[in-house]
Amino acid sequence: MMRLDDYSDKGKEVEELGELELIKQISRRFKTDNPAILAGAGDDDSAIIDLDLANQTRRYLVVTTDTVQKSTHFPDGISPFQMGWSAVAVNLSDIAAMGARPFAILIAMGIPEHTATRFVDELVAGIEACAASYDIMVIGGDITKSLEPVLTGTCFGFTSIVPVRRSNARVGDLVGVTGTLGNAALGLKILSGEAQVAEDVEHAAKLALFQPMPRVKEGIILAESGMVTSMMDISDGLALSLAELGRSSGVGFELYKIPAGNEVPRELALYYGGDYELLFTIDGARGKSELEELSEELDMSIIGRVVPAKAGIYLKNGAKREEIALKGYQHF
Amino acid sequence: MMRLDDYSDKGKEVEELGELELIKQISRRFKTDNPAILAGAGDDDSAIIDLDLANQTRRYLVVTTDTVQKSTHFPDGISPFQMGWSAVAVNLSDIAAMGARPFAILIAMGIPEHTATRFVDELVAGIEACAASYDIMVIGGDITKSLEPVLTGTCFGFTSIVPVRRSNARVGDLVGVTGTLGNAALGLKILSGEAQVAEDVEHAAKLALFQPMPRVKEGIILAESGMVTSMMDISDGLALSLAELGRSSGVGFELYKIPAGNEVPRELALYYGGDYELLFTIDGARGKSELEELSEELDMSIIGRVVPAKAGIYLKNGAKREEIALKGYQHF
Repeated sequence: MMRLDDYSDKGKEVEELGELELIKQISRRFKTDNPAILAGAGDDDSAIIDLDLANQTRRYLVVTTDTVQKSTHFPDGISPFQMGWSAVAVNLSDIAAMGARPFAILIAMGIPEHTATRFVDELVAGIEACAASYDIMVIGGDITKSLEPVLTGTCFGFTSIVPVRRSNARVGDLVGVTGTLGNAALGLKILSGEAQVAEDVEHAAKLALFQPMPRVKEGIILAESGMVTSMMDISDGLALSLAELGRSSGVGFELYKIPAGNEVPRELALYYGGDYELLFTIDGARGKSELEELSEELDMSIIGRVVPAKAGIYLKNGAKREEIALKGYQHF
Repeated sequence: MMRLDDYSDKGKEVEELGELELIKQISRRFKTDNPAILAGAGDDDSAIIDLDLANQTRRYLVVTTDTVQKSTHFPDGISPFQMGWSAVAVNLSDIAAMGARPFAILIAMGIPEHTATRFVDELVAGIEACAASYDIMVIGGDITKSLEPVLTGTCFGFTSIVPVRRSNARVGDLVGVTGTLGNAALGLKILSGEAQVAEDVEHAAKLALFQPMPRVKEGIILAESGMVTSMMDISDGLALSLAELGRSSGVGFELYKIPAGNEVPRELALYYGGDYELLFTIDGARGKSELEELSEELDMSIIGRVVPAKAGIYLKNGAKREEIALKGYQHF
């Protein structure tokens, strides 16, 4: 795996290339022949989307913005390709959490002046690959000189059904998550030498850390099922996400289990972020067969139920009750 | 005027406040009661706009993203209020250049950990003030820890008439600009001690530099007139903007005059950026009376005409022809 440092003294630097040429080269990569995009990356002052041609069911427009940067977001050993991938992925995860269909993204890049053009090429390739994987277009952006690599994505999408909010979980609802948690955190522990695991687990953990796969398809299935009462993505750890969902909805949570990944200690699954799974609640009045049908459609598990706010957020193990602390990843 | 350094050791720092509290305080400032905004700043994973309630004529959605940051964009002496203002203004200018109506903006902020909360308060006040001045809403954002203050805005707007592109200038069209140029550059020269001017000129020059007023209203009037064939904003200097418009449209330009501001040397008006005026072309077949009517509606001047690409870009002064060089502000 290549590191940022490996690019510092090889080949041409962006400064030699010049801004106009850099923009031209990058914009070329993001050309689209979608007729709804009248102006895309590099074409004009703004991107133009012809909504009549966008061919989306589009009562609602959802928009989100998220920044990733070297000093705070990128673990040692991440490749520029994966940095670019992550910038798109974290934004897609926020669209997924609304149950909407992502449509396009804009990426503002900050690049240090002595960065090798090869580094930028791979960064762009990562952006391109993630966008293509999720069938969205890169329709604009910005390039500035910065002290460290920093990428701010702004993603938008459409939906015709009311987007799923954080505020509608009700006492008696079930609590679910997609996939398993703590894999990205395990990846970090492996890198720091604090954890040793089987080779395939190590591979999966590092992939979760370096190249997250946001749950876009799952978000849409959950929203369209009509069974989901609230939803959000788990970017800063399950504990903080539960706290936020509880605060927004005015409820508490009783968990029966923590959906930790393979060989993942429970602590990591609860209090570390970076997995980009979805946390959601399901209307408690729904029948068992409906729930089973939903479970067959996507990788999810039911981990507890919604309780009154005054009960708090805790894990129940037989008669034992264990509080879940309010901690996880915070920037400040 | 307060400087960034003045905030370094006064009062609480954002690190003490914590991310959740910081987001809460900032989001509160951006609350809107517009019924079309189902979720705004701080409310959910993404912002939600109900397009049916947005009450905009909206065949076209235009979107743009632009970053401003301390090391590359902010001149010495700029206040945090003006940094926030600028982050919104530069994005509005790109929407103005399409002739669209701006609707809302998202702001991703990078803040060093030891920043005083008072600094952030004023930054936010500047964002708020510019957004309010142009009647747009701040509907989302992101906060991360960064090495220097950096603000990435993503602004979007709507229009029902085809947005004005850069690519449709035709030989025989007239060339126009709004306002006057070089005022921001003059402000820089005053700050560095290279220029001395009358007090009122100094005040205006510094305001142009620190708190630009994007030409949103003018962009809409120009687009709706149906007379404008191409348009873009002049952010990196008139010379670079002419070159870009010429490249996009496959034309050249003959200028009769440079619309320099009060006491502004021609060099500054041509080759320095930061004014955020609009450059546009007007259908050459339009009559004089139509042109006069347009001129009465907004602060603009006709500065030349569109010529074949092979003629180049030049200033004509009687029989003298002076080439306009391809230089201006570039990041790399």
